[in-house]
Amino acid sequence: MDVAVTGFDSPATSEYNTLDMQTPDRRFKMKWWGWGAEDHRFPLPDSGATLDYLRARFGLERLEPPSDLGLDSVCIPDSRVDAELLRQFAQIVGQDNCRTDHRERVLHSVGKSYKDLIRLRTLRLDRATDAVLYPRTEDEVAAILALCSQARTAVVPFGGGTSVVSGLEPEPGQQRLVVAVDLAYLNRVVQIDEVSSTATVEAGIFGPELEAQLRTAGFVLGHYPQSFEFSTLGGWIATRSSGQNCLRYGGIEKLVESVRVVTPAGTIETLRVPRRGDGPDIMQMFLGSEGTFGIIVSATVRVRRAPEEQDYFMFAFKDFRPATDACRTLLQSGLSPALLRISDEEETTATLALGHRPAKGLQALQRRAAKWLLARRGMVPPSLSTVLVGLEGTRQQNRRLRRQVRRHFARLDAFYLGRSPGRRWLETRFQLPYLRDELLDNGLLVDTLETATTWSRWEQLYVAVREAILGAAAEQGEPIVVYAHLSHLYLDGAALYFSLLGRQKQADPLGQWLAIKDAAAAAIRAHGAVISHHHGVGMDHREQTGRSDVEREMLEQLKQTLDPSGIMNPGKLL
Amino acid sequence: MDVAVTGFDSPATSEYNTLDMQTPDRRFKMKWWGWGAEDHRFPLPDSGATLDYLRARFGLERLEPPSDLGLDSVCIPDSRVDAELLRQFAQIVGQDNCRTDHRERVLHSVGKSYKDLIRLRTLRLDRATDAVLYPRTEDEVAAILALCSQARTAVVPFGGGTSVVSGLEPEPGQQRLVVAVDLAYLNRVVQIDEVSSTATVEAGIFGPELEAQLRTAGFVLGHYPQSFEFSTLGGWIATRSSGQNCLRYGGIEKLVESVRVVTPAGTIETLRVPRRGDGPDIMQMFLGSEGTFGIIVSATVRVRRAPEEQDYFMFAFKDFRPATDACRTLLQSGLSPALLRISDEEETTATLALGHRPAKGLQALQRRAAKWLLARRGMVPPSLSTVLVGLEGTRQQNRRLRRQVRRHFARLDAFYLGRSPGRRWLETRFQLPYLRDELLDNGLLVDTLETATTWSRWEQLYVAVREAILGAAAEQGEPIVVYAHLSHLYLDGAALYFSLLGRQKQADPLGQWLAIKDAAAAAIRAHGAVISHHHGVGMDHREQTGRSDVEREMLEQLKQTLDPSGIMNPGKLL
Repeated sequence: MDVAVTGFDSPATSEYNTLDMQTPDRRFKMKWWGWGAEDHRFPLPDSGATLDYLRARFGLERLEPPSDLGLDSVCIPDSRVDAELLRQFAQIVGQDNCRTDHRERVLHSVGKSYKDLIRLRTLRLDRATDAVLYPRTEDEVAAILALCSQARTAVVPFGGGTSVVSGLEPEPGQQRLVVAVDLAYLNRVVQIDEVSSTATVEAGIFGPELEAQLRTAGFVLGHYPQSFEFSTLGGWIATRSSGQNCLRYGGIEKLVESVRVVTPAGTIETLRVPRRGDGPDIMQMFLGSEGTFGIIVSATVRVRRAPEEQDYFMFAFKDFRPATDACRTLLQSGLSPALLRISDEEETTATLALGHRPAKGLQALQRRAAKWLLARRGMVPPSLSTVLVGLEGTRQQNRRLRRQVRRHFARLDAFYLGRSPGRRWLETRFQLPYLRDELLDNGLLVDTLETATTWSRWEQLYVAVREAILGAAAEQGEPIVVYAHLSHLYLDGAALYFSLLGRQKQADPLGQWLAIKDAAAAAIRAHGAVISHHHGVGMDHREQTGRSDVEREMLEQLKQTLDPSGIMNPGKLL
Repeated sequence: MDVAVTGFDSPATSEYNTLDMQTPDRRFKMKWWGWGAEDHRFPLPDSGATLDYLRARFGLERLEPPSDLGLDSVCIPDSRVDAELLRQFAQIVGQDNCRTDHRERVLHSVGKSYKDLIRLRTLRLDRATDAVLYPRTEDEVAAILALCSQARTAVVPFGGGTSVVSGLEPEPGQQRLVVAVDLAYLNRVVQIDEVSSTATVEAGIFGPELEAQLRTAGFVLGHYPQSFEFSTLGGWIATRSSGQNCLRYGGIEKLVESVRVVTPAGTIETLRVPRRGDGPDIMQMFLGSEGTFGIIVSATVRVRRAPEEQDYFMFAFKDFRPATDACRTLLQSGLSPALLRISDEEETTATLALGHRPAKGLQALQRRAAKWLLARRGMVPPSLSTVLVGLEGTRQQNRRLRRQVRRHFARLDAFYLGRSPGRRWLETRFQLPYLRDELLDNGLLVDTLETATTWSRWEQLYVAVREAILGAAAEQGEPIVVYAHLSHLYLDGAALYFSLLGRQKQADPLGQWLAIKDAAAAAIRAHGAVISHHHGVGMDHREQTGRSDVEREMLEQLKQTLDPSGIMNPGKLL
C-alpha cells in the first residue's frame, strides 16, 4: 500500500501508532473498515487548494464528514465450523485463542485494497473465514496444519492483514472450511547477534515493535514498506515486500538470511549462512510464497547499525523525464542515497493540492518565495516534477553525499527545495494510507498499482500504462487522474508506482475498478514488465503474471510437495 | 578453483591467456591433464625459500621437471554411441560438431579437481563421455535435448570444464549413453543496453572475451572467479559462482537479471526486470542448478561502468583473528572495498615461501626494510597474517576510501605493506592454479575446500575444520599443511577457504584425499555451515549438503517437472 502523496506540504502529525501487540485482541484497536488505528484519522482540509483541486477534477463541492460504519451491521455467512473441530482447535491453542466471534471473523476475511474497502462499505461479505486461531508456539502452528491437513480445512496465514491483492480472503467457491491462523503471539525477538549483525525474530512481530527492540541494541532492519506500522515480518517475507529505503537496505530478499517455515510436509529451516553455493537457494522459494507453501514462523534477518542521522531533502525539475534521468545517472555513477523518489508532474500537482495546509508567518513567506523562484524557472504545475532524496548514515557520510547529490542535480537544472519538505515526508510517511478512507468517504475511487522494468523501457511503459488506465476509465464514464512515481530504484531499472484518483461509478464501483485494473495489467504484460514489484499476486493478479506453463508447473509441483492436501491459502498466487 | 597463494612476493607474469574461442577446436589449446593453456606454466623456483619450505614440511630435496603426459596413452572406454544416433546428432549440429575423437572425449570427461588430475595422471578413466556435441544455436540445443529425452541419453552441459566437484563426469554405474553438450559456439554478446547497464550474452562465452567486449562499451561485469580465463557465463550461473571482487559487484546471483534456459520440458526466459514481487523468484532455481534442470543458453547480466582505477594494497597483522575482526568492523561501519582477503598465519607463511623470488637492487633493499620493520613489531612468521585490500572506483573515490581504510586498520595495530604486493596479486590472480600442476609433479597433495558461516561462528568453524583435516591426514600417515583465508566477506559473515598441501600417499592418493574431504565435510555440517560457498555440489558433495528430506524433495520435484526423463546431468547435485 502506498498512496502516492509525498506530503510535501502537509503538516506534521501525531506520533507512531504502535499498537499493543501483546494480546490477540489487538485487532479490536484496528479499524475493521479502513486503514490503521481505530482512533486515528488523517483528515483533508475542507477548503483552499485541496477542495479547489477536488472540485476542478471531480466536481466535489464540499467534503463529507467521515462515515460511521457499524461492525454489527456487516453481514457475513455463518461460521461453518462444527463443534468437534472447534474443540480440537481449542485443544491446540486454548479456548481463548480459538475465535469465531463476528469482529474477529470480519477482520480476518479481507485485506486493505480499494476493492476490499468498497465491499466492506456495502456491509456485506459473501465469504468469510470460519474461525480464527491464535497459536502461541511453533508447535501449535504445526499441530494446526496437521489437523487441517487431515480435516482438509483451508488455512490462511495471517500477519498484519494489509494485503492489497486479495491475499487473505477465502477463495470464491471454496467449499472447505477456512481458518485464519493469526501469528500475533509469535512476536518475540529471539536473539540479536551483534557480531554477525543479525537478529532471529518470530514472524508475527509488527514493524514498529521489531524496530524498537532492534534500536535498543543499536540496530535497525531498515525495512519500511508503507504498511510498516500494521504489517509483520512474516508478511513481508511471504509477500516479497520492499521498503521505502530499499536503496540502502535492500528488499526483503536481501534482508533475510534464513527462514523457518512450518509446512504440511514438515518444518524447514534454511542454513544461517551469508551465502551458499550448494545448489539452488531453496529459501528463495518461500520469499513471495504468500502462505501457499506453509507458515513462516521465524526468520534470521540482517540488521545494520542505526544511522546516526536521517537527512531528507527535495529537488524540483520541470519534467518527470529529466528528473528520472538525473536519478538514474546519479545511481549509475556510484552514488547511492537511502531513498530516491521521483514524482511525475501529475503527482506533484496532486500532492501540492491534497497536501496543502494554510501557512502563517515565516512559513507563508518562505512558501511564497519558493513559489516565485520556481516560477522564474518555469517550474509551475503542471510543469513541475519533484525528487525526494533521503540519506541515512553518519553525519559525515551524509554531508559528503549530500554535497555530491546537490552538485549532480544542479548540473541538471534542478532547483533545490530544501529539507523542510523532506522532514515533512518523513513525518507523514506511514500516515498517507489514512487519506484513502477520507477520499472514499467522498465517493472517490482511490487505488494504486505498481510494476517494474529496466531503464531503457520505463518511459514507454509509463506512457502505455497511463493511457490504458485513462482509456478504460473514460469508457467507464467517470473522470480520473493518474499519477505516478518511481520510488524503488536499481542500477538496471526501477519500480513504477501508479496512483489513481477518480470519481467512483456509483452504479458499479467494482466493475469500474476491475476494468481499469485489467487494462493496466494488459499494458504491463504487453511491455514485458512485471505485474507486481512488491504488492504480490494474491487472487487479483493470479491470471496476470504472464508466467509460462513450465514456470507455473514448477510452482505447482513445489506446492504439491510441501502441501499435498492443498490446504495452504488456496486460490492465492497459483 | 582458488589455490590459496596470494602471491605477495611473486613476479609479474605473461599477459592474459585468452583462447581463440571461435572454433570448437579451442580445447586443443587447453591442457588435458592440468590447468589452463597448453603452452603456459607457472613454475616454482628450484631453490631458496621455496625449496626450504617444501623440504622442511614435506621432505622434498629438489623439484622434479614437469611431467610429460601423452594424451594417446590415456585409456578410456570405447564410445558406446551407435551410428544411427550419431547420424541424428550430426543432422542437428553438423558432422564437424559431433565428435567422438579421443582428445575431445577425454577433455569432456573430467573436471579440474585434485581428484580429477590424479585420475588423469594414472592415464586411465573408467568412465568417459560417449560423444561431444557443439550446438551452434539455441534451436540446436533444444533439438539435442528433445532427441536425448526420447533416446534416454544422458546430457552433460559443458562450459569451461573447470568444475572441482565432479560436476561434469559421467556418473558411476550410468548405463545410459552420455553426451557432453559444449556451448563454445554460443559465445556472442547479443546486446549491451547502456541505459539500463545490462548486457544480454550467450552462455558459452569465456570470461576474458566477455570482459573485453563489455570494456569496448566502457563496462565490466566484475565477476572474477579464479577460473575466470577458462570458465563461462553459463557455467558461472549454473554453479552459483562468486568472484574475487564480489564485495563490489556481488556473487553471480546479484549480477544476473534474467536467464534463458532450455529444459526438456520447454524453454524458460525469466522477465528482464530489476526486481519482482509476483511470487517466488523462479530464476533463482536455475542459479546453482548445475545442469540438472536444463541448459542455460543466455542471460542478461547487470554491468557497471569500468572502474577508473584499481588500487590494491596490503596490510600485516600479527594474527588472523584481529585481522579478521578489523575487516569485519570495517565492513560493518559502512566502508566497502571491492576486495578484502585475509590470509591466516599458515597461509602467509606458505605464500612467502612458495611465492618467493629472489630480488635485486632497490627491491631487495625495500624487502629487507619491510622485514626489519615487521620484525620490530613482532610480525615474523608464524606470527604474521596479511590483509589484501582492493579498491575499484574513480580516483577520487579510491583516494577517500583508501584513507578511511588505512585509518581504520592503523587504529588496530596493522602495518601497511604498500601497493607493491597488491599489484603483484592482481598480476597473478588467475595464474595460481597453474602452480598446482607443478606441485602435483612433485608428488604433493594440493587441494582446496570452502564453506561459509556467520561472523559469530567463523572462528569455531575454522578451528574445527582445521583439526578435522589435520586429524584425518595424520591417520593417513603423511605430513600436511592446512591454511586458510577469508576472501568473500559479507556484513553477516564470510566464506572460509582452506588450502591443503601435503605429501601424497603414493599407495592410495584418492583414499587419502577422500578421508580428508569427508572429515572436513563432517566438521562443516556439525557447525551448521554450508558445504560450499561457491564451488558447488557436483557428485563430490551430494551426500554432504545436510539438506532435509523436504528440501531434497523440493529439488527433486523441480527436476521431475523440468526433466521428466531424467537425462540432465544425472547424478549431480541431487
